[in-house]
Amino acid sequence: MSRAFNFSAGPAALPEAVLVRARDELLDWHGTGASIVELSHRGPEFMQVAADTEANLRTLLSIPDSHAVLFTAGGATTQQALMALNFATPGQAVDFVVSGHWSKVAMKQAAPYVDVRIAASSEAGGFRDVPSRDEWKLSPDAAYVHVTANETIHGVEFRDIPVVGNAPLFADFSSSIASGPLDVSKFGLIYAGAQKNLGPVGVGVVIVRRDLLERVGQPRANIFNYASQVASDSMLNTPPTWNWYLLGLNVKWMLGEGGVAEFARRSERKSNALYAAIDGSGGFYRNEVAANARSRMNVPFFLPDAELDARFVAESRAAGMIGLKGHKAVGGIRASLYNAVPVEAVDALVGFMRDFQQRHG
Amino acid sequence: MSRAFNFSAGPAALPEAVLVRARDELLDWHGTGASIVELSHRGPEFMQVAADTEANLRTLLSIPDSHAVLFTAGGATTQQALMALNFATPGQAVDFVVSGHWSKVAMKQAAPYVDVRIAASSEAGGFRDVPSRDEWKLSPDAAYVHVTANETIHGVEFRDIPVVGNAPLFADFSSSIASGPLDVSKFGLIYAGAQKNLGPVGVGVVIVRRDLLERVGQPRANIFNYASQVASDSMLNTPPTWNWYLLGLNVKWMLGEGGVAEFARRSERKSNALYAAIDGSGGFYRNEVAANARSRMNVPFFLPDAELDARFVAESRAAGMIGLKGHKAVGGIRASLYNAVPVEAVDALVGFMRDFQQRHG
Repeated sequence: MSRAFNFSAGPAALPEAVLVRARDELLDWHGTGASIVELSHRGPEFMQVAADTEANLRTLLSIPDSHAVLFTAGGATTQQALMALNFATPGQAVDFVVSGHWSKVAMKQAAPYVDVRIAASSEAGGFRDVPSRDEWKLSPDAAYVHVTANETIHGVEFRDIPVVGNAPLFADFSSSIASGPLDVSKFGLIYAGAQKNLGPVGVGVVIVRRDLLERVGQPRANIFNYASQVASDSMLNTPPTWNWYLLGLNVKWMLGEGGVAEFARRSERKSNALYAAIDGSGGFYRNEVAANARSRMNVPFFLPDAELDARFVAESRAAGMIGLKGHKAVGGIRASLYNAVPVEAVDALVGFMRDFQQRHG
Repeated sequence: MSRAFNFSAGPAALPEAVLVRARDELLDWHGTGASIVELSHRGPEFMQVAADTEANLRTLLSIPDSHAVLFTAGGATTQQALMALNFATPGQAVDFVVSGHWSKVAMKQAAPYVDVRIAASSEAGGFRDVPSRDEWKLSPDAAYVHVTANETIHGVEFRDIPVVGNAPLFADFSSSIASGPLDVSKFGLIYAGAQKNLGPVGVGVVIVRRDLLERVGQPRANIFNYASQVASDSMLNTPPTWNWYLLGLNVKWMLGEGGVAEFARRSERKSNALYAAIDGSGGFYRNEVAANARSRMNVPFFLPDAELDARFVAESRAAGMIGLKGHKAVGGIRASLYNAVPVEAVDALVGFMRDFQQRHG
């Protein structure tokens, strides 16, 4: 067995230690005689896994008691529809700050249910920056203000929490949650598909201020009701137990490595090294995102032409680096530097980039 | 490592061969240098897994080209809401045949969106039978007729496909799909959470007649739109790839074992043996479901009192049999006999029941 350096944007790399543990107990979880994926979600074994995972996630992210935590089936896109149904009245205004592809997806999912308002957008500039807070036009009657904390495709990230006034701030943290300290109390709702920093694909996390659960929202099935989900500890129906369990192993691993403060240091080191390699290449590699909005998680960059992009992907794969092909919406190369991606992977990538440029530059 | 006989109702037993395969390739899938759970759903590796899984599922279940197949995040409950949104106009009549707990859940999820009509119910008799077809009162204007093919809690199963006239028949097959031959063309929609016969928890399957996708339905987010999901091959957003992959391994295993015809034989043999043990116990074990509606998948039974029920669960666990505690809604014992439960497990259970009765009867 040989493990590659995996720069995939998601589903993404997991720590080898987490996978080894999951492998070793896949046929017999803690002497139960069954896999965790074969055990009832209502049995004492999985109930303990679920409770431990929530407790550890609360520790990792410093989630205050004012906020409930949900573990959801499906990813962030479903939540974008559900938050409109749960927290806005029919046709109520919702303010969206548009900083890339995923901000637009969030608007699209909410559009059938609310009055979608664009408070600010960096689209005219090709999503190379986040909209400056002093340019946002917020609605006085908005149900909430939505931001995408990190844009996985465009490689743009809010480095500070914007202050938004009365309406609660809702944020898609799918690709940057747990990458550094965060004051959760400043948010009405934080949501994230788990398949980047938190763990495996197939489960998501919603962190929601409890008082917001009293909002009436819009007519909806009970399975779409956040308050019902909170009341049933995310077990209104059978949850994705294996994915939840793997998320739990990954959260424990992050705590053991030193928590979000340590991952903030590693993220700075990894992303600084990669941006330095790009900026120091004399224009052979290009990333045009404004310096103060560059994502520490997803670094898209471009070679002089698409033929070289393709060659870069093929040669890096042969050198043991996978997942570097850019998203089809923008092309080029994309290196994702989530918590499970070790510093050595980035060092190897930077070395490969130097070598590639010498051969093809 | 020692594997127990697992009678859990779901999440449920998986074939040991499937788990061994998943374990052996968990850190390096087919020489890619990464786990399948770490690979992009849009990469060639997972796209092949997805395509193979659909092709094999179509073979296993003899799904005609007239029907599309979806692989969904989340389980059956979500689909109960989505089918109302996709196939009924606001407030349109939907006929429900109520044969147990899960039929009622289906009604509850649809209630905010449609005019829920009970075409027939066996609730007055304690859900010990399925409502006889000649007693159903169907609405001429119904969007669809909903049945629960197998009631996992009450242990009641439709042994034949009811003929329903003009409105398409929608059926929850969560706990009996792939347990025997089925004429899919007779259904407008079949849906199933995978965590029983199909494979692991965290993924579901929807089989839907393509012409129904042209129905306008009700205002809804794009992520809730079946037609959009079909058009994007179930990848409108990041799907639960690992669960989908494990489902694929399990479908291949079922084909290798002889397909649904073989599992129908095994299910008859297993359930006959267990019902014979119950009926031959002189009333010590009781199952009161009508003979022609007894489920081949889930066999609930009761001992003379709740204290003996609890002792049975504890002693059977000590004897290497797990997952036998009945659902809290009805109590008692429940043995689930899904495809991955071997005949030997049922033989062991029947032997244990005889022994337990001798000691406590």
